[in-house]
Amino acid sequence: RVNGTRLMETLHSTCEFGKAHPWGAHETETGMARLALNDDDKRVRHWLIEQAEALSCRVTVDQMGNMFIIRPGVDNSIPPIMMGSHLDTQPTGGRYDGILGVIAGLEVLRTLHDHGYQTKGPMGLVNWTNEEGARFPMVTVSSAVWAGEIPLETAWNCKEVTPTAGQEPQTLKQELERIGFLGEVPASYSAQPMAAHFEIHIEQGPILEDGGLKVGVVTGAQAYNWYEIEVKGRDSHAGTTPLSARRDALLAASKMIVESNKAAKEFSGLVTTGIMRAEPGSVNTMAHTVRFTLDARHPSDEQLSKMVSRCREVFKKVAEEDSERGVEVKWTTLTENVAVQFDKGCIAAIEESADEVCARFEETAIGRKLWTHLTSGAGHDSCNASKRCPSAMVFAVTREGMSHTPDEYCSPEDCIASADVLLGAVVRYDKA
Amino acid sequence: RVNGTRLMETLHSTCEFGKAHPWGAHETETGMARLALNDDDKRVRHWLIEQAEALSCRVTVDQMGNMFIIRPGVDNSIPPIMMGSHLDTQPTGGRYDGILGVIAGLEVLRTLHDHGYQTKGPMGLVNWTNEEGARFPMVTVSSAVWAGEIPLETAWNCKEVTPTAGQEPQTLKQELERIGFLGEVPASYSAQPMAAHFEIHIEQGPILEDGGLKVGVVTGAQAYNWYEIEVKGRDSHAGTTPLSARRDALLAASKMIVESNKAAKEFSGLVTTGIMRAEPGSVNTMAHTVRFTLDARHPSDEQLSKMVSRCREVFKKVAEEDSERGVEVKWTTLTENVAVQFDKGCIAAIEESADEVCARFEETAIGRKLWTHLTSGAGHDSCNASKRCPSAMVFAVTREGMSHTPDEYCSPEDCIASADVLLGAVVRYDKA
Ligand SMILES: NC(=O)NCCC(=O)O
Ligand SMILES: NC(=O)NCCC(=O)O
Repeated sequence: RVNGTRLMETLHSTCEFGKAHPWGAHETETGMARLALNDDDKRVRHWLIEQAEALSCRVTVDQMGNMFIIRPGVDNSIPPIMMGSHLDTQPTGGRYDGILGVIAGLEVLRTLHDHGYQTKGPMGLVNWTNEEGARFPMVTVSSAVWAGEIPLETAWNCKEVTPTAGQEPQTLKQELERIGFLGEVPASYSAQPMAAHFEIHIEQGPILEDGGLKVGVVTGAQAYNWYEIEVKGRDSHAGTTPLSARRDALLAASKMIVESNKAAKEFSGLVTTGIMRAEPGSVNTMAHTVRFTLDARHPSDEQLSKMVSRCREVFKKVAEEDSERGVEVKWTTLTENVAVQFDKGCIAAIEESADEVCARFEETAIGRKLWTHLTSGAGHDSCNASKRCPSAMVFAVTREGMSHTPDEYCSPEDCIASADVLLGAVVRYDKA
Repeated sequence: RVNGTRLMETLHSTCEFGKAHPWGAHETETGMARLALNDDDKRVRHWLIEQAEALSCRVTVDQMGNMFIIRPGVDNSIPPIMMGSHLDTQPTGGRYDGILGVIAGLEVLRTLHDHGYQTKGPMGLVNWTNEEGARFPMVTVSSAVWAGEIPLETAWNCKEVTPTAGQEPQTLKQELERIGFLGEVPASYSAQPMAAHFEIHIEQGPILEDGGLKVGVVTGAQAYNWYEIEVKGRDSHAGTTPLSARRDALLAASKMIVESNKAAKEFSGLVTTGIMRAEPGSVNTMAHTVRFTLDARHPSDEQLSKMVSRCREVFKKVAEEDSERGVEVKWTTLTENVAVQFDKGCIAAIEESADEVCARFEETAIGRKLWTHLTSGAGHDSCNASKRCPSAMVFAVTREGMSHTPDEYCSPEDCIASADVLLGAVVRYDKA
């Protein structure tokens, strides 16, 4: 068993780096704003290196700033079994999304260390850079580069969404350099091979809580694509330009967003716009340019593709037929991720471990199984990892299914249970 | 007649302060970004003081930074006839909106000076602060304070729409202080009375050009109100929050904007959203807060009020019945301006002057009258002035009716014609 007290203390103490948005009276009742590669991310990364060194682990930083922490095993000629997640957060993020995965991985290494437990092969922890895609709008970008899914240069050149006051938007590479985490080792599965990749994450949905369950064994993730849509019209005077003479980019963009929601309903998928910017931004001047994002998701690759095509169709129609003198619409793909099936062997290791951990909660179980299989609604670094090594995930209960919000919450009991499932799974996988 | 060459040279040379957005090859083919009280506005204000002093005029700066430039007449116990407009611009503004009015006023004073022409009463020029409402979202705010329509403190506390990089949003008063234009004289019609207020402005609409006309005699302006709408929902994960569980502030705001356009059509008015901001602004997180502006206009006060009520109704409906788990919507009034009728005496002076100036273009007229009465679609400082002194306006031809855009254009011939109409009007009004 992991040391649960230490797990929770470590998690909350690292949240001092980047805590934000208090929502309750207790000092841990805040959210996070630790955007990838900002100063707080730098601080928590240095902290992580110290912890790794205290366990006599080797730390490697690759060209994407991914941090690989390896605890040697008996036979170090074979690749390590890795536990991985991310330490970056949303701008209004919580204390568990990503963070629980890394801190639980560290806790597993600490537990092995405390007991002097020798694994057959090496075992380790990876902190993936910019998983959220919140600062640099390419989600799980660094595990994608590792997996050979995205060229290094494309990822390096990705520009931040919200520039710091007084600065040009920085690229991911510039920020890696600035905080001293631009490593020299190639970000690649061939340079840093893994025997397997296990990840704990909060569910971020309501199924476990609603079902009174303790653990999710994740068998795969739905497909999702991100786009930036640029709508170009004409700036002109709000008081003197007749409606019929307008090329109003903001009105057209609003119509498109409403239409995209209809498409999501039609295909039983999800479509979300989280960012929208209008230029020049004056009360009495129509916007000449609006840029907005689309996050489109579906469990089926084919249905996702159809839903996005429907959006393209209706946006074109709005631009050409329902915007008075017309606007132009341009799509840029930010990221595309097919649906993923995780590895049977990794899933089996997690199932066995979940059986054992859930036995602890027998009293509340009344004969029911306290874990279930789940498909992830969110994308995760494990999805990229799974392209190059056996992978699977453990989901922890999330209060009201709420995530990407400051009061995102996973109880200590549930954090600890999921960490114990992880410990049991990696030790089993190593043995096998 | 004014000195047309000097008028155009002065206009373009002052546009060096704040020029932006080139759209053609010639050096004058740019727009402007001289936002109220920025460094370029400070420079052009200092330039204006120099010009006034060169004409031996007295310059008074009031508590709103309004600049009153007075050329003495024979009897200086009576208030001055003023020509007024504004030197601030939109962020993507042109070279004529406001600027033509101030520079033409100066040209009239210069012409009187050149000829040693003694007016009966004093005659002057006023540069009104932040007419556009583009930087500080209260339109024609400083003439409104002068007219006693808005309390000084309310105007002073108005915060800028787009803060400078790295700064808190500044208030109008802070910026007046910073650029050294916070005067001590009360901004009030009693401290700075006017015998009349005349203003040249570009039409900003297509009627003069489409009719092959040279001059507009403006008899009034339509009513218009500005609001900021705040929509509050809940931030949550774009990949794991079912559509039915959402409180998506951005989707709701988009629906409201689409509905406001329907209301504008229904009431044959105008409704425009020029600013929209979503927080926190992340691709995979729903916005918890969206703020957008509404600029609503109608020639009839009653119809404007009905159109805005319709917007309130439909926004409430979107918030309560068409936003899944619901959002909250809050209205803040930024400015409300009733429809205005200008003064018959001022209008008559302009008509007579327009008759004389248009006679110049007899060849193209083929018997037609080359000026017409117009109602202004835009608001102007003259609307506020008209509450406290006789006022009227001259409109100049605007290419394709386009304004609040960098390639806004009024030909030298049309600029000069309108300046001559102004000269004739103020001299006539002084005589009478
Ligand atoms: N798990 C998580 O919230 N990561 C961000 C990727 C996504 O948007 O699904
Ligand atoms: N004339 C002008 O464009 N001023 C701004 C006031 C308005 O929005 O009507």
